[in-house]
Parts: sequence; C-alpha cells; structure tokens
Amino acid sequence: MGPAPRILELFYDVLSPYSWLGFEVLCRYQHLWNIKLHLQPSLMAGILKNSGNQSIAVVPWKGQYMFNEIPLLKQLFQVPIRAPKDFFGESVKKGSVKAMRFLTAVNMEQPEMLEKVSRELWMCLWSQDEDITESQNILAAAEKAGMSTAQAQHFLEKITTEPVKNRLRETTEAACKYGAFGLPTTVAHVDGKTYMLFGSDRMELLAYLLGEKRMGPAPPTLNGRL
Amino acid sequence: MGPAPRILELFYDVLSPYSWLGFEVLCRYQHLWNIKLHLQPSLMAGILKNSGNQSIAVVPWKGQYMFNEIPLLKQLFQVPIRAPKDFFGESVKKGSVKAMRFLTAVNMEQPEMLEKVSRELWMCLWSQDEDITESQNILAAAEKAGMSTAQAQHFLEKITTEPVKNRLRETTEAACKYGAFGLPTTVAHVDGKTYMLFGSDRMELLAYLLGEKRMGPAPPTLNGRL
Repeated sequence: MGPAPRILELFYDVLSPYSWLGFEVLCRYQHLWNIKLHLQPSLMAGILKNSGNQSIAVVPWKGQYMFNEIPLLKQLFQVPIRAPKDFFGESVKKGSVKAMRFLTAVNMEQPEMLEKVSRELWMCLWSQDEDITESQNILAAAEKAGMSTAQAQHFLEKITTEPVKNRLRETTEAACKYGAFGLPTTVAHVDGKTYMLFGSDRMELLAYLLGEKRMGPAPPTLNGRL
Repeated sequence: MGPAPRILELFYDVLSPYSWLGFEVLCRYQHLWNIKLHLQPSLMAGILKNSGNQSIAVVPWKGQYMFNEIPLLKQLFQVPIRAPKDFFGESVKKGSVKAMRFLTAVNMEQPEMLEKVSRELWMCLWSQDEDITESQNILAAAEKAGMSTAQAQHFLEKITTEPVKNRLRETTEAACKYGAFGLPTTVAHVDGKTYMLFGSDRMELLAYLLGEKRMGPAPPTLNGRL
C-alpha cells in the first residue's frame, strides 16, 4: 500500500465556464495522480459578494476575452464548451442557485452521482445554451447522468428545504474562509499544509505541489477514454 | 531554411510580478520555439484605466492570494521573485512611469539591451525591494545589465523627452487596441491570425496555438544555462 492520497477540494459553480475546465482536468487526473477529489458545489454570487471581487461581466474587455478564448480552450482541454448567446445579459442575471442547490442535494444523498450530474448541467448551459433555471432542464440533465425520473424529481423537491440551502451556504462560506475570490478554487491538502489555488490555469503549480507529473489538460494516457 | 518565426509581442510593466514570470518564460522559449519575441514596455496604470479593470490592490483577498502564491511560483518558475514589503501601499502608489520610460528609451536606441535591463529592474523592485522611482536605482540596474555609466545616464536624460513619452503612450495604446485589460499580455501572430493572451498562465494555450511543445515554465533543456 502506497502513501495515502492527498485531498483536493474543488469549489465550483456550473455558471462558471472556467469551473468546467478545472473540473474536467481534475476529474481526469484523479485517475492518474495519488489524489482524492472532493467536489464542492458552491455559489459564485456568494463568493464575489463576500470578497468584494467584481464579476467578469463588469469589465467588457474581460468578457470579450473570455468569449474569444473559449473556442481555443475547447480544443486544448477537449471539453465541448460553447458560450451561450447572451451569457451576461441572461444567464448571469438568472443565476445558478437552483442548479447548485440541486447538486448540493445530490451530494448529500448520492455523492457518487455528483460528477456526472455536474457535467450534464454544464452541458446544458455551456454547450447546449439551455436555461438551467428551468426545472425540466435540471431534471433532463440528471436523467442524462443516469438517474431515474423519480430520483431526479426527489432531488428537485429537496432544493427548497433548509438542510440543502444551509449546506450550499456552508460550502460557499468554506471557500470564502480559504480566501476564495472567484471560482473554480482548488484547495490542496499536502503534508499538513493547505494551498488555495484560483482558476483553471494553476495545474502546473498543483502538479508541482503534489510532486506529480503534469501532462497537459487532456493527458494522453486518457485519450482512449475521452 | 525552415518556416519564418512567428512574432510574439509581450506587453509588460516591471511593476507587475506576473509580467516578470511571463517575461522569463518567453525569454527561455525564444531559444526553443520558432518564434521572434518583441518586448513591448507598457504602462499598467494606462491599461487598467482604459479597460475599466480594477487593480489587484482593490480586492484584498486577491492581493493576499498573490503574496501567498509568489513563493511557490518562485520555485516553479525558477525566478528569484520576492514580494516588496509594502507593495500596494508604496510601490503601486509610486508607480512605474519613470522605469517604463527608461526601458522605452533603451528600446528605441539599443533594443538588444532591453531584455537585460528589464530583468534588472524587476530584480531591483521584485527581488531586492528597492525603489524603482529613484534615479540611482534605475542607473544601477542599467549598469548591472552591462551598460556604461555614461550610457545609462544618457537614457535617463531621454525619459523627459516627448519622443520617449509618446512611444510609451503608443505602446500602451497598442496593447489596449488588442483588448488588453492587464499585464502581461502576449499577442501571438500565427498564420495571419492574431491571438491576445492574458497573464503568465496561458503558456499551454500558446504552445497549442503555435504547434510547439510545452515543457513547463523552466524547460529542462535550458537547465544548464539558468
């Protein structure tokens, strides 16, 4: 038996395209590195508010940059990402609280389903340009991830309950306590130390901290499985 | 004779620590990839003002994050970077216009010296915690880079002239026209297309766009030379 895997916490919101990229990369490397990945569904709006950071939507040139680089990152990361038509005008305004509460409910009762359901919600908003505030789209994503209609409906009913609301609030607050000012935020627990890394572009630093080998965003040994 | 090298423009300011990291990596890869690096000394303050982006100083958690990750990036990038004691309170307030005009003057008359003088100015502020608004420190940096006292003095006298002031303004405006909202900004000219990349953390994307091999921030084939 080798050394115990290092815990990585990934705080993310399905509203955030860079969260999707960071999520897919860590989901791939969890099979290659000696790590244990803890997915932490959080609320971007809460983290921006808490840190006083401004949304990317506030600086038009940042938004433009994001739209320009997404088709390039799609190829580099091998993630089928495509910007919604009116992301800042519509998606950001509508928010993600319902979707993130749904993922929180899944995480509380069926954590083994969280990775797949999260991915399908990103597919919904950030690939198909569908509205993730609509119940039928959330249910459809959960079914695509492998849930029965009854299971999906069960989790949808949970999202208005206090335990689920509280849990999402607590996870978001945990990210804030680590010093998060945006998402994705990765917290690596290595040799008794805690490192908070912001963004989907700190993977070389993460590999360095873990003493693991970095093989790009789409590691070649996984190609057969992608 | 192989294909013509692709032009990379690196817009940077010595006030910016991430500019230093991006600069060193591109200076290394200019000897490994089929690229021609054009160093473009620019003014961070002008770019933030033009884009409406806020300085990292405005969000305390972002600043804290920067201070936390710099000792890690120092090791990963193999750059002797160390944060000044009172960066936001003192260095940012004093600004970099004098240092960047000095580099602009060097670029106009002795561009072959620009890389070394830029590096020594970063060494001054971002390694030794010295004041880059002091003339004697700018002169000392230029001499460490290999200039004679008379040459260094010559460039210092140039910084109040209109051609130098205008050139720095024009370079900063050129970055803005590419859509820059911070520094470093790299503009890659590849197969008739122009790609603007923000930050020191887009090197994997840059390698992908160029069809070149990424070997981390401190490529191993250069180890003997570092």
